[in-house]
This record gives sequence, structure tokens and C-alpha cells, in this order.
Amino acid sequence: MPGKLVLVRHGQSTWNLENLFTGWVDVDLTDQGRGEAREAGRLLKAEGFEFDLVFTSVLKRAIRTMWIILDEMDLMWLPVERSWRLNERHYGALQGLNKAQTVEKHGADQVKIWRRSYDIPPPALTLDDKRHPRFERRYASLKPEELPATESLKTTLDRVLPYWNTRLAPELKAGRNVLVVAHGNSLRALVKMLDNMSNEEIIEFNIPTGVPIHYELDNNLKPVSRRFLGDPEAIKAAAEAVARQTEGKK
Amino acid sequence: MPGKLVLVRHGQSTWNLENLFTGWVDVDLTDQGRGEAREAGRLLKAEGFEFDLVFTSVLKRAIRTMWIILDEMDLMWLPVERSWRLNERHYGALQGLNKAQTVEKHGADQVKIWRRSYDIPPPALTLDDKRHPRFERRYASLKPEELPATESLKTTLDRVLPYWNTRLAPELKAGRNVLVVAHGNSLRALVKMLDNMSNEEIIEFNIPTGVPIHYELDNNLKPVSRRFLGDPEAIKAAAEAVARQTEGKK
Repeated sequence: MPGKLVLVRHGQSTWNLENLFTGWVDVDLTDQGRGEAREAGRLLKAEGFEFDLVFTSVLKRAIRTMWIILDEMDLMWLPVERSWRLNERHYGALQGLNKAQTVEKHGADQVKIWRRSYDIPPPALTLDDKRHPRFERRYASLKPEELPATESLKTTLDRVLPYWNTRLAPELKAGRNVLVVAHGNSLRALVKMLDNMSNEEIIEFNIPTGVPIHYELDNNLKPVSRRFLGDPEAIKAAAEAVARQTEGKK
Repeated sequence: MPGKLVLVRHGQSTWNLENLFTGWVDVDLTDQGRGEAREAGRLLKAEGFEFDLVFTSVLKRAIRTMWIILDEMDLMWLPVERSWRLNERHYGALQGLNKAQTVEKHGADQVKIWRRSYDIPPPALTLDDKRHPRFERRYASLKPEELPATESLKTTLDRVLPYWNTRLAPELKAGRNVLVVAHGNSLRALVKMLDNMSNEEIIEFNIPTGVPIHYELDNNLKPVSRRFLGDPEAIKAAAEAVARQTEGKK
């Protein structure tokens, strides 16, 4: 029997509120985001989940969500592995820009393509742009060809899936229960692969923040079931909030 | 050049206040303890320390201290490794007992021996004692012969030093800056080894809570210097507080 898999998207971040493109920019949770994380931990504890290890990104909005969940579940002792491969989709030269200003500059149609297409990335950061990840110590161990300067959802999948294959899948196959706390698009990569979704389906699939998604898997790690934990009305509201947010920005 | 080594003892815990023997019991920090952790993080940040990885125990008073330090330093993305080998000294059958009641039962002289000798452990937990670590999921991967039912400072060293040799020393030799957030006695084990102290010296050496200890090491990982970070008067007060605490209990 493989282990259980639970995915959690981090709670609301400060830049959600400020209408800025975020990507790999390391913004923190809002108070509401912390509350969403607490609720995720409370639900997982109430349902008796016993995790063996935890995977997260190197971005603090995911790490803090994970900390709050482990604290709430009294599982602070669990091994945790952080990887850039679970980071949010890199948003290229749009990172840090205001959405309204970006529409003004590039046009609404172009911005919509960057936001909603499967494989068209926003403009890349130039190598000398101070926002380029090569200037950040946390990415110093990556090879130059691994460091994105922009990403589409497709290229996000390209760097998430090797991590699934080498780190998560072996642990699940060994029967360990795995918690993944990450981001809208790195989790979409996992959901697309697990549920064998088309490019169009995954683009339309919104992952609500702070709602644990529980997968039961068979011996080949194919899903037997997928369900959202918690009150169905609250989950519906959260999913709608995310969809609205995506209307306004990404 | 080897990396820098910084040791931090967790801040005040709730059982410090309640006059109970703690050991491996998983008690949390007090508000004062959280404040000590923040101050440690502030000092390390002000001095410009850039760590590459972090080691801590599987006990939440150390883990929370580490979380607060990483948050304060804006280093939440750092890799963290937890190990039972950095746990506090196991306090055997005395764990959870009130110090005054223990003196009443066993006599002041006997309790002093358990507290202050180098190699005489308190009475062991019996295998069927519900407090035995074999009943805790976090120790399920240990071999039965690794699981302590009580420890002296000497046997604490015996399980800390292999971890130094296999995990910390290689990272330091590779030039990585290492932060260790742990407990009074697991840190004493490291200090005794590094500074080549006698059994008597280490027993008298009190490690203040929340005060970072910075070691510069030569290529053989022998100390070139050891210093406490922060205001000398505050450090002296913290060391005296720990010494008084040890008078009252351990």
C-alpha cells in the first residue's frame, strides 16, 4: 500500500492584496493567509492524518503555511525538504509589476495570453536584471540552465515532474504519508500529471488556497480518489475567490 | 577554509517555570523564550551571518527557537535537518516529576548526584512505562538499542558525537556555515569535544539560553576562537540565570 498524499496551496499573500505579479518574489502571508493555514492544519488533525514527511518550496508563503500546519497538528518534528522545484511559476519580467500598469503597457489581450495560456511564458528577465534568480543566494546551487528567467505552466511542469519522480514518488511507494505545501502552479503540475488532465482542463482547474487535497493512490501511484477536505460550501467559496482573483490578476 | 559554526540553546520553556524535570518531554517555549529566540536572530542578522544549513533536534522548544531565528534573519528557505541525536539529555524516570517531590522521595544528595555528575544517570524508564520513547512515532525509525530510557551527560555525548562526525563535520569542512539550535546538554557535548574540556569542566560550564556561540575553526575543525554574541552584561545575566535554575532544578 502506498502512502497517502495531501496537497495544500499556501494561504493569501500580501501581494494578492496589492494586485502585483508575484511568481518567485518572496512575499509573506497576510493575517487571512495565516488563518487559512491554521484551518488546514485543524482539518488535517481532526481527520487523523499522520504524515511521515513534508515537501515545500523555498518561498516563505509556502514555508510559513507549512510551519502553521505542523504546529497546529503537533508535528513540528517531521522531516521537511525544501526545493525550488516546488516554487510558484516564475513570472518573468512581469514580477513585481502592477497588473493594471501591465495591461496599459502591453494590452489586455496580451496579458490574458500570458495569464491563461498553457505554454506561452511572459517576457523573460534579462541576465543583468537584478530580479534574476541568479543573484539570490538560495538558488546558488542550481546549474545556470536550471534557473528560469520566465516560465509557462508547461515549463513549470517540466521542472516539477522530475522532483515528483525522484523524491515524492519513491517515498509514497515506500508507504510513507506525504504532505506537500506549495503554490497554485506547482500543484497544478502535480494534479495534471496525477489526474491525466489535458492542457485545457488544467488551465481551468483552480486550486483553492488552504484547502487540503487528499489523494488515495494505487500501487502505480494512480489516483483511486481525490477529495477536498472541509466544509463543501467553504471550499466552493474559496475556489470562487481564486477564480475571481485570476480574473483580476495572476 | 571551513565554515562558521554557531550554536544556540533554545529559549525558556514552560516546564522551566513549573519546576519539572523535562528531558525528552516535548514542551513548548514561554513568551520569554520566544523573545530570547528573536533576540538571537536579531543579533545574528546584525552581525551579517549567512548560514547554509541548520541542524536541530526533534523537540519543539528547539524547533520553534530555530523557526523564530530563521524568520528574524529572513532565511526561512534554508535546509533544516532534525535529529533525535541533538535532543536534550534523557532524564529517565524523573521526566515529568516535580523537583521538590523528587528530593522528598530520593533525598537531596541523590538528586544532586543525578543532576551534577558526569556519568551517573537517573533511574531508567521501564520498557512498559508509557513515557518510554518507544511509544512515540517520532522515534519509530530508531533501533531498539539506540533508544535511551535514561542518560547521563556521558551517554548523551555518546549519541551526539557520531552525528557531529557524520553530518556536521563534513558540511563544515566543505566550507558551509552551520547553525545548530539544540539543548543545554547536547550542546555541552559539542562544546566539550570542541574545546577538549575535562568531565569536571563541562559540568561547570553553563550555556545561556538564546545566546549564539560563534566558533571559528581551523582546517582540522579545532577552535581558533569562541565567543558569545551580544551585550556582555546581558550574557552574564543569562548565564547566571541558568546557573540559578540548575540550583533549583535541571
